[in-house]
This record gives sequence, C-alpha cells and structure tokens, in this order.
Amino acid sequence: MKVRERLREMGLSVTSLHDVSNMSRAIEEAKVIFVGGGNTFRLLKGLEDSDLLNPIRRKVAAGVPYIGSSAGCIVACPTLKTTKDMPVVQPNSFEALGLVPFQISPHYLDPDPASTHMGETQEERIMQFLEENDSPVVGLREGSILRIEGDDVTLKGPNNARIFRRGEQPIEAAPGSNLGLLLEKATAVVGSAA
Amino acid sequence: MKVRERLREMGLSVTSLHDVSNMSRAIEEAKVIFVGGGNTFRLLKGLEDSDLLNPIRRKVAAGVPYIGSSAGCIVACPTLKTTKDMPVVQPNSFEALGLVPFQISPHYLDPDPASTHMGETQEERIMQFLEENDSPVVGLREGSILRIEGDDVTLKGPNNARIFRRGEQPIEAAPGSNLGLLLEKATAVVGSAA
Repeated sequence: MKVRERLREMGLSVTSLHDVSNMSRAIEEAKVIFVGGGNTFRLLKGLEDSDLLNPIRRKVAAGVPYIGSSAGCIVACPTLKTTKDMPVVQPNSFEALGLVPFQISPHYLDPDPASTHMGETQEERIMQFLEENDSPVVGLREGSILRIEGDDVTLKGPNNARIFRRGEQPIEAAPGSNLGLLLEKATAVVGSAA
Repeated sequence: MKVRERLREMGLSVTSLHDVSNMSRAIEEAKVIFVGGGNTFRLLKGLEDSDLLNPIRRKVAAGVPYIGSSAGCIVACPTLKTTKDMPVVQPNSFEALGLVPFQISPHYLDPDPASTHMGETQEERIMQFLEENDSPVVGLREGSILRIEGDDVTLKGPNNARIFRRGEQPIEAAPGSNLGLLLEKATAVVGSAA
C-alpha cells in the first residue's frame, strides 16, 4: 500500500500481483519488477506455489529492472540462506531467484558491546553461513542500496557495507565502492602437487 | 567443551555424540540427554542425517530427561519454525523432535522503543508464525527455564515469559507459574449452528 502511494507520487502506476488473476501475464507485461519485504520463507514459498520464479528470472535476464527490499532483496540471491526471518512455512527448496551470484544480509546490525543477549550476532550468523556455503555475503546496513548493472555492484547510501568471504576476515566497503570484484564467488585454485 | 567441564564439576560424566562411533547406542545407554546450542538448521539436519530423531524420542518417552538449551530447546518442539537462526543448510523437513506440544522462542528480546532498526521484532516474527501455524509459543527471556514433568510446565528463573496464542493478545507469565494449560494447543470448538 505504502509502495503504491509513494510510486504514484512519482507518477508510476503499480499493478500488485496480489490483485491480478493472471500473475505470469502481469510479470510478462511489467516494465519494472518490485518485490517488497515480509517473511522471506513465506515469500519464497509463494513464488514457488505460483510458479513465478522462472518468469521473473526470464524478465530480468531480458533486461527488466528488479528492485527488491528486505525479503525482496534476499530472494534475488541464489538462496534464502541469509534471511533472519523465522521459518514459519517450509518452501520446497531454499533456492531463490539467483539474479545475483552473492548473498545479501539486509538490516545488518553491528554487534552491541553492551548487550547481555546470549543469541548469536548477525556477524556470527553469517560466519555460520560461510562454514556451510561459499557465496560471498554483503551485510547491508539500514539506508544502503546495491545498484547492480552488468558486473558493477555499486554501494549507495550513507553507510559502509560489510563484506564477508569464506576463510577471510570481513572487510568494510565505503559508499560509492564498486563491490563487483569482491563479490565474485571464490574460484577453485588448482595448485601444483608437491 | 564448557558443558563437559561444568558437568564434571558437578560429578557428572558426559559422552559427546561427536566423539562416539555408534551414536544410537550412546543414546540407548544415556541416563540424561543434553542438547546444547548452535545453528538450529544444522542441528536438525545433523539429527536427520544421523537418524537420531526417533532414538531420542523413544528414550524421552521412556522417561529419560531431556535438557535443551537454545537450539537444543527448539528441536524439542514440534518444528524448528521459531528459530531465529539463519537457514544455512536445508534439512529434509522442518519437523523436529516434538517432545512438547508447543513452540519455544528462546533468547526472547523485548522490542527496543529507541531502535531505528527496520527489521521485524521477535514479537512480530512470532505473530507471523501464528498466522501460519497454531501451536502456542513461549517467548523465553535470557535466564529462564521451562521445567516440564507430565502436563506441568513450570517457569523457572528470574524473568517473566511471554505467551503467544493464535488470535489472542500475548500475555506475561510470572516465574513459578504452571503454563501447562496455557500451552495446550487450541482445540476446535464446535459451536451450535445458528
């Protein structure tokens, strides 16, 4: 609702998939695809159940811009494995749209040194992800945007992003940086046998 | 490691499943089962992959005490759907041990009114769970314990617990309360037709 009003103020009209009977056709005719927030598991299961993953992948491959916020930003990644949402429903698979070759961890919160909370921090959770998976992860703080065109991944907004790669110390990237190279998946290095 | 040292100080010896070759037999011979914390998805997948869910269920049904902390407390519930962990690996099913008929949401954090964080609070996440599922949920704050014997569910420790039931306002339960009745699954009420 908020999205529709904001975009109307900008002169754009929004067709919500929740309101149309033929969702695939609505995607076929879209000039831009926007996927907002909510529970990531429910979102991915909804996309699975409505058979929308491939239609969205095809449109984006054909050049239609995709804008994702929060859960909508995670489902653009290879999997939903960096969500912080509760797994309130079980999708068939954790595989998501895979529009980009890395994972995003939005709403990134820095550890609070004053906290008495015993649960893991977001950084610790991402480290667990990297123990099991080798996609790089961008910890995206509130107010940050990644603008992706071709191989360029530009960090916009007021804050640094935190970049996590398997087996490496996390690094901070400044606004305006092109993170493209940082976010390439680690390629296997074939060493010469000793 | 910490668990082993603490329990040794209390005169108890611990056999870690990570160290034994025959895990089913170690469970068969256990006098108490303790499952600690970590990533809940990884824990459940480990229990699935090692075929330990049924052996643990059988032992607990036969009267062996089960002690769970953090992830170990969530896997005692019907599903892992109230974890806050990242879904870093995909278990076959979200179904967990089901030793109790309700869900626990440990490390329960109250909303911080000063926060500028845009992600959902734990309460909002539990409300999403209840939109999709009808098991009651106990939000268990740091330092709290549920001691369960038969139908009695006693809240121990210094803090209130927050009880969430589908379609109802959450309520606070004081230390020492028996939450047994509160945590019964809502049963269908058959009304007389008008």
